[in-house]
This record gives sequence, structure tokens and C-alpha cells, in this order.
Amino acid sequence: MARVNENFLKLRGDYLFAEIARRRTRFQQEHPDAHVISLGIGDVTRPLPQAAVEGLKRAASEMADEATFKGYGDYQGYRFLAEKIIEHEFAPRGVSLDVDEIFISEGAKTDTACFQEIFDTSNVVAVLDPVYPVYVDSNVMAGRSGFPDESGRYSGIVYMPCTEQNGFVPELPRERVDLIYLCYPNNPTGATISHADLQRWVQFARETRAIILFDAAYEAYIRDDRLPHSIFEVEGADEVAVEFRSFSKKAGFTGTRCAFAVVPKKVKAYASDGSAHSLNALWLRRQTTKFNGVSYPVQVAAASVYSDEGRAQVAALIDFYMSNARIIVDGLRSAGLTVYGGENSPYMWVKVPGGMTSWEFFDHLLERAHVVCTPGAGFGACGEGFVRLTAFGSRQNTEKAVERIVAVI
Amino acid sequence: MARVNENFLKLRGDYLFAEIARRRTRFQQEHPDAHVISLGIGDVTRPLPQAAVEGLKRAASEMADEATFKGYGDYQGYRFLAEKIIEHEFAPRGVSLDVDEIFISEGAKTDTACFQEIFDTSNVVAVLDPVYPVYVDSNVMAGRSGFPDESGRYSGIVYMPCTEQNGFVPELPRERVDLIYLCYPNNPTGATISHADLQRWVQFARETRAIILFDAAYEAYIRDDRLPHSIFEVEGADEVAVEFRSFSKKAGFTGTRCAFAVVPKKVKAYASDGSAHSLNALWLRRQTTKFNGVSYPVQVAAASVYSDEGRAQVAALIDFYMSNARIIVDGLRSAGLTVYGGENSPYMWVKVPGGMTSWEFFDHLLERAHVVCTPGAGFGACGEGFVRLTAFGSRQNTEKAVERIVAVI
Repeated sequence: MARVNENFLKLRGDYLFAEIARRRTRFQQEHPDAHVISLGIGDVTRPLPQAAVEGLKRAASEMADEATFKGYGDYQGYRFLAEKIIEHEFAPRGVSLDVDEIFISEGAKTDTACFQEIFDTSNVVAVLDPVYPVYVDSNVMAGRSGFPDESGRYSGIVYMPCTEQNGFVPELPRERVDLIYLCYPNNPTGATISHADLQRWVQFARETRAIILFDAAYEAYIRDDRLPHSIFEVEGADEVAVEFRSFSKKAGFTGTRCAFAVVPKKVKAYASDGSAHSLNALWLRRQTTKFNGVSYPVQVAAASVYSDEGRAQVAALIDFYMSNARIIVDGLRSAGLTVYGGENSPYMWVKVPGGMTSWEFFDHLLERAHVVCTPGAGFGACGEGFVRLTAFGSRQNTEKAVERIVAVI
Repeated sequence: MARVNENFLKLRGDYLFAEIARRRTRFQQEHPDAHVISLGIGDVTRPLPQAAVEGLKRAASEMADEATFKGYGDYQGYRFLAEKIIEHEFAPRGVSLDVDEIFISEGAKTDTACFQEIFDTSNVVAVLDPVYPVYVDSNVMAGRSGFPDESGRYSGIVYMPCTEQNGFVPELPRERVDLIYLCYPNNPTGATISHADLQRWVQFARETRAIILFDAAYEAYIRDDRLPHSIFEVEGADEVAVEFRSFSKKAGFTGTRCAFAVVPKKVKAYASDGSAHSLNALWLRRQTTKFNGVSYPVQVAAASVYSDEGRAQVAALIDFYMSNARIIVDGLRSAGLTVYGGENSPYMWVKVPGGMTSWEFFDHLLERAHVVCTPGAGFGACGEGFVRLTAFGSRQNTEKAVERIVAVI
């Protein structure tokens, strides 16, 4: 008799974005004439950079000709893409990497969700609170937790509060933790981490032999030159950290799908006999067995964003969204709201006014302003009292949404 | 301290295709003038069908325009593709499916490797021997086995011998098995399964509440109308089976990447309290957490192979490879070799002559005929005494390879 993985049965059924969609649909049915604007979901809206479009088409033509047709590629991805990534993303910041430390993948979500598979189920997982739910859910599925409590916190997982008081960068844990998920620029708070703070985390991981899983999916939005883009800018991080990057938010690839993980050859974890094992080798083994590489035309498209035109187009794309962020931050602040993020991140973390809960404020904005946000409570207990807004809308919708929010608070 | 998943350490280090590449490279270095032809690796060589190429380009143009740009798609894939799949792959064979029973993915390898995650680690896994190594390795990683013995068989996994005597379709297991991997048309033997035999397996699964994971990645090569293309042609299979399909071998998508899993809503597995749980719901939960959908241009390309021109191009592609198969089967048989497969499958399973082992015959063919095959022993203990040849080469190479093999046996 086939038995299900009962860890799946621990997962909470109420998925944040499904509940948002439900409330929005109900409102729209009751008010069919209302023009509802979403500043809630983190998906891009601008077209794919022209360089990437041309890359896709060029590669499609190659696939049509026997002489240039591509079958299975390398499991880790094409060298031409890994080389461009190193040249443009890491070398300029003083980070030196080998091509076989880059693993091209179809998404940073997939990578952050699957990377835990190479670790034992006994590892203690630490996450930020509020948190991107994928880190937690993937570890619950793997059996690294008990059941959730009323606030949605799973027993066995260490939640590290990110609050106004600590600038959304938590204290170092006092309890044992083995796998630490950090995400900066942060989703959902929009907070960033300084080089000095990141250094403290790397030091902590080195002392405790923990591993830091660093999600840098939003690094392209960093404007402040002093902030690290990669955890590998911190000395010694290449012995205790892996990093996840994506073309999704950087270059509008949410529907085109390309990302990469950086797994230095020096990072090691341990077996019960004390022996040290390379995470690079383990992840390669995982990928060769459970993945088959990214679509060739998509890899060509990703590499194309590093051409001169591609980089200019990406810069314009980021500028566009960051101007939206500016409009939201300035508009809401001038109306007296407290707004975090939005300066080196496409996310704004807005303090709910007037003692409402985040779901109450959600309903208030939906019903009065016809604007959809994301209630902070959906990201964890410490998200209560905040909502997340994103800079990914059109200019017109962003301006209109800010006007309407300001009018109803 | 971060601990590794020690199940990974059970995996055998000697990967079949790596060893083949090593021997080939050494031979080529020692004989730089030799023109080595590979009939070993299962990758396609013909260009992508023109309809798919045009689909890729059309979708790339859509991505360039804000009005038609696509961000995140549905986790299960686009409805337009699922509908085409049902219309062309299942409805004509009397199989009725809902669109939400189709999960578009980036590869059947990924699906067959990852699907086990929704099951408890205590399930007993049964595989054919010889076997596509991914089914075994993914379950070893998940902890459903002990260590391998000298022949490469892992303790705790049930190997079901596929031999000349049983026509490469094994007897029903006598011991307890919970998850049964079947692959027909089979890789590596090229064998097919009859409707009656498949019915026996479905009946067995129903009686024992086991789940059949049916890999039908090569169904497009079936020429005999009496053979089932889908396990769902068997009544009652929709309560005990899931099926994996791919555009890789059907439409030359090995480098373009698109596949799908069929998970009927009726299939259930059980929790320890006896409650039944829908695999469709569990797989959806797994995919929403650990996957983010297939590239939109790739899904458009896949849907395009179901247009009138696309279907004609796919038929021509399959015909081409099957003519290669005919050349190999006829050529080797006329030289006195015993050859299985190749009639409803792109794989030929060739009996090694003269009492050699499969690796000895590999070396013999490499050194004397300058032809690379795949030693059967690499697929399992029951593969000893056979080598696998594939129909995926160019016409010229296929003809030349057959000539050369015939000359040296």
C-alpha cells in the first residue's frame, strides 16, 4: 500500500495569494464597475529586454538547422552563460568564481526550495520572520518541522524576528541552527543588509559550521554602492554560504525562466562520522539526477542581457520600476504613513495606520481605494501590522493607486 | 553544524555515461585519425520541427510587447497546451482527462525523479532490471534504500528481472511493493507492453493499493496499433497510476525542454490513519512550492507541434529515426546477431555474441569498429550480456556504424 509523505499534511491550507485572489474576486463581483489595481503580487509587467527577445529568436533559428541544433546541454548550464555571469555579476565586485561553481536553473524559487534536499532532515532551519513562504514549506515537506501553531509558525523551525527596532535584520540566534535562510534585499520588507552585518552572519556560520542559504534575487535593485550585492563579497563566505540569483526580477524573466545558484567548491557540510563533504559535488549529483538543464534558447536569452545593449535595457528596466518605488514611497510618506524599503528594493513595507490588522487594512484599501496589497501577516507573525506594496505595476496604475490610497487614509 | 543527507553517500560513483566518455576519449587520443560514431547516447540529432521554431519566435515577439508580455504563468502550465495534449494524445485513444490532471514540466526525467517526494520514505520501490538509473538514484537519495551490492543493486529496492525469457516484461512481484516504476516502450530494452499485460499490472496495483509510475516518454515510437500508448487506456488505471510524457524524443525537445505528467484526480495514496489523499492535490502542492512553471515561449513551441504542419513534421521526424532503427535491426540480424526492440522504440537491445561481457563488447566495438554503444550492465545486473544502440544518429552515421559492426563480428 502506497503511503503519502505525511509531512505534506502539516502544511497550512490557506495559501496567502489564493486568499487575496478570493477577496479580490468577491469584491469585483459585487462592484463590477470598480477598476481594481494590484500593487500586491510580485510579478513584472514591462516587456522582456529587446536583447533577450533577439537572443530567443536567434537561438530558435539555430534549433531549426541540423548544423547548429542543440540537444541535451550540460546539466550545470552552458559555459557561455556562466562565463558572462561571472564577468558581469561577480568579477566587478571582487568575487572570483569558477564556471563550475555556477549552476544555471529555471528559477530561484526552485533552487531555494530544492537545495535543502542535500541536507539531513535533522538539521535545524532558521528563517527570517516575515519570510518568503517557500523556504519554510519546502523544509516542512522534507520533515524538518512539526505542526504549525495558530500564528502559522511550525514547531522545530527557528523564526528570527525582523522588526522596525532591528531594521529588519535579526539578531544572531542563541539556539542551535544549522541551515540559515537569509534574503537581502528582502522580500517582503524591502530591507537591505550592510557588509558589516553580513560579516557577522558569516562569522557566526563559520563558528557554528552552519550553512547560509543567501537569496539575492533582488540584488539588481540595490542603488547604494556601499551595500553588498553578493554574500561572497564577505571574506570567508565561500566556506559557509551558497547564493541564489535570478533573471526574473532583474531582466523581466518571470515568464521566460532562468536563474542560477552559486555553490563554491569550498563549502562543506558534515556526515555523522565527521567527514566533510562538498556541497558543490552533492548539488551536482542532485541536479544530474533530478534536473535536465535549462532550455537552450532561454540560456541564450539570458546571456544576451549582458551585451552592451542588453545591459542598457536592463538598467532602464530597473530605473523604471525604481521610479515607481519612489512614487509610492514619497506619496505615502507625504500622507503620513511609515514606509520601509523601496530604496534598494522593489518592495515597500508599509506600516498599517490606526491600529488595524494587516488583513483589515487590506480590506480597507480594497473596498475604499480599489487597490490590492499583500497583508504582512501572510508572511509570518512579525508581518502583522504591515502590508507589502510592489513597484512592478505600470506607471499609470502606480500613480493612480498612490493617489487613491492617500485619499482613504 | 550542517549535516549532509547521507543517503547521497550511498550512491555509486561510477556513472555509466561518464565511464563511456572516458573510454571513448582515451581511444580517440590514442587514435586521433579514427572517426568514432556514437550509437550510444539517447539524444536526438535532427532539427526542431519548423512549427516549434516558429512558435518560439512568435512567443518571443509577444514577450517584446507590453500588451502581450507574459510574466509568471500557471504552476501547472498554460491551459492552451494542456488542452492540445488532451485533444491529440489522449482523446483519440478514448482516454478522457481534465486540464487540471495535466502538469506541464521541463522534463520527464525531472518528473520521474521528483514525483517520489510526495510519498513516505517507508514505501518499497520496485523497478525493472535493466532500468533507467534515475528512478533508482532519486529513491536512494530520498532514503528508500540501503547500500548497493557489487552488481550495483541497492538493498531495500525490489528489482524485477526483464529477460529474453519473459519478453522483457517481468512477472508480478511476490513480495510487498508500493511504488512500481514501469517504462514502455522501454529504455533500454526497446520492449513494449501489451494491453493485457498492462491490465495485469493495473489489477495488481488495485489489489495491493500500490501506485504505478508509468514512464511513456517513448510512446510516439509505437507503430503497432494494438499496443497501448498510455496506461490510462486500461480501465481502472486512473485510480492507481500516474504517467510521464515528454516532447524530448517525440519532437526533438531535448534541448528545448518540455514534458508533462498526468495525475488523475482519482489516484490516491494513504496516511497512517488510513485516510486517502489525492496525488493530484499533493503533486500540485509540491509543484507550487518547488517549481515555477515552464518558459512561456517553450510552451508555445510545444503547443505548436499539434498544428497540422507540426504533426506532419513530428511524424516525419519519427519516421526518420525509425528508418534508422530498421537499418540497425536488419543489418545486425542479417549478420547473425540477436536484436530486440527497434520496432516500436528508438532503442535496440543487442545480445552480445561470443560470450563476451557487455563492457568487453563495448571495447571490442570501440576499438575495432570505432562505434560507441551503451553496455547493458550499466543499466543493471540483467543488462549484462546486452548492449543498447539508439536510432538517434544521422542516416550516414547509422549506415556506416552498422557496416562497421557487421564487419567486426
